[in-house]
Amino acid sequence: MSRILILTEKDLRAAVRLDVSAVDCVEQAFLALATKPVAMPPVLRLDIPEFRGEVDVKTAYVPGFDGFAIKISPGFFDNPKLGLPSLNGLMILFSAKTGLVEGLLLDNGYLTDVRTAAAGAVAARHLAREDASVATIFGAGMQARMQLAALTLVRPIRSARIWARDHARAETLAAECAGQYGIDVTAVADPRDAMRGSHIVVTTTPAEKPILMAEWLEAGQHLTAMGSDSEHKNEIDPAVFARATYIADRLSQTRILGELHHAIKSGLVGADDPFAELGAVIAGSAKGRTSADDVTFADLTGTGVQDTAIANLAVSRAAGAGSGQTIENEREMGGDA
Amino acid sequence: MSRILILTEKDLRAAVRLDVSAVDCVEQAFLALATKPVAMPPVLRLDIPEFRGEVDVKTAYVPGFDGFAIKISPGFFDNPKLGLPSLNGLMILFSAKTGLVEGLLLDNGYLTDVRTAAAGAVAARHLAREDASVATIFGAGMQARMQLAALTLVRPIRSARIWARDHARAETLAAECAGQYGIDVTAVADPRDAMRGSHIVVTTTPAEKPILMAEWLEAGQHLTAMGSDSEHKNEIDPAVFARATYIADRLSQTRILGELHHAIKSGLVGADDPFAELGAVIAGSAKGRTSADDVTFADLTGTGVQDTAIANLAVSRAAGAGSGQTIENEREMGGDA
Repeated sequence: MSRILILTEKDLRAAVRLDVSAVDCVEQAFLALATKPVAMPPVLRLDIPEFRGEVDVKTAYVPGFDGFAIKISPGFFDNPKLGLPSLNGLMILFSAKTGLVEGLLLDNGYLTDVRTAAAGAVAARHLAREDASVATIFGAGMQARMQLAALTLVRPIRSARIWARDHARAETLAAECAGQYGIDVTAVADPRDAMRGSHIVVTTTPAEKPILMAEWLEAGQHLTAMGSDSEHKNEIDPAVFARATYIADRLSQTRILGELHHAIKSGLVGADDPFAELGAVIAGSAKGRTSADDVTFADLTGTGVQDTAIANLAVSRAAGAGSGQTIENEREMGGDA
Repeated sequence: MSRILILTEKDLRAAVRLDVSAVDCVEQAFLALATKPVAMPPVLRLDIPEFRGEVDVKTAYVPGFDGFAIKISPGFFDNPKLGLPSLNGLMILFSAKTGLVEGLLLDNGYLTDVRTAAAGAVAARHLAREDASVATIFGAGMQARMQLAALTLVRPIRSARIWARDHARAETLAAECAGQYGIDVTAVADPRDAMRGSHIVVTTTPAEKPILMAEWLEAGQHLTAMGSDSEHKNEIDPAVFARATYIADRLSQTRILGELHHAIKSGLVGADDPFAELGAVIAGSAKGRTSADDVTFADLTGTGVQDTAIANLAVSRAAGAGSGQTIENEREMGGDA
């Protein structure tokens, strides 16, 4: 007999929010990635071109966390025509000691949103100037909103600018965020203007060509690019590599799926050039920002350690609160089929 | 709102048995693999050496099946010390059109047992002599039992021999099978004796060195090796490649995980030598057995298409029978975290 906890999206929204504890949890995962024998295999990818579908499977075992998560993220881009969201998915939490299923986290991608935003906060916490108070967000989707919320958790953000290709969407989001976070948020029509005088810039778009140019960067800025998670996506002008201290979430991934991939392709960076990872900066074994004038650049493609961290947090919170449903899954030993 | 069907092992044992319909279902999957644009990415593998754990994730999209399965198979080999089985796992069935989760199949590996045995039946149906009536099974575990049961579904098996390293276990299994399948089943202490005069030989062991020698093969025999599913496993003497017509379940997999891998390593076969796949034999586009005297050799490492096939069968059967539990998973659109 094994007991499996089933948590719906509603249960998970009640259990886990984007707050400092979620940021701390994801920070621990990045630290473990740099300091412990984490096992994080390459992403499994299934494509179903017939329905414009793509499915990513990520996982990581992180010593110190009781469970490991396997996350399945389907994106089916004809879904909106059917009145359905494009992105879905779930996480499954397994005991790292026995491999038994402990929790089914039917989050429809919610936990990914949280852990992705939390990684942005971790990057800002370790790379942005301590006194960073002006933020710029490129994009107007869910992550645009959440990355801004994440920054407010780790830096004294007083005002924000939002730029998006669709200015009307930027305006809508700016109005919503201003109300929600109690800070001054404005939509800016020109991306260069949006960056001028800003301290932290986060790009959250699915752009396939650079939307942020190297010459726009100013001394002291921190840049986080979190939009690219596949080979054809590219938000940042590769020339930024010559101006900024580059930090990857996971080098083996950003070389293939991140902004680094495009810098390598453009020839501005060598395929094996060494760069630091965020976990090493957290651990203090690699340098991030060394002065108030440095320009820092975090390239976040999303890692299995974040999923494992957030899934452990969710299940321990939900179990503590007694939420969710439990299924008893009886095992028949040695029976014939 | 999406509805997700949750099926326990008990539900699944009631819905799917190893019978001709399961064999037909898996046969359709192999046929599709040969004739349709199936998407089957390489297996994702996570190792947790700290607890002697390994996790495989397999998937395949098979045109013509409504859903695609993702199967997660953990093996934690210290579990028996804790009174737990080593092998566990579940399958998740997604709509191939929208990527939405349709079913959570908490099978603890049961469906894998069925689809693996069914593949043995498919191989025998297409490669063994029509009149094959004597079967030999190497091994005395669950698959030994199930492979024998599978053969009885597709060939007029009248008698069987079981050989295992542990002869007492072979005797126990022989007694059980004789009672269950109403055929003559004997445990044989010498593997060569066990093969003499047999028509179909199936190896089901986790051997890491060959347990079946090429010189033991007789004209007309069909051999299925299904024990090897990882690089270090090897049941069959590579010299068999010179005596038998070799058929892979999936060449790109058997070159890495199957018996072919060891034949390549031994230098008896080239790394790129062309061989037929089972699906092509089913489709009639590749030759399998061409005469009663041929020796045929199927190398089964287990493929994602089998999982997708059996998961679709299970969910459609269970839904038809009204079994399992349904979870309503409400989606909150556009909410902030």
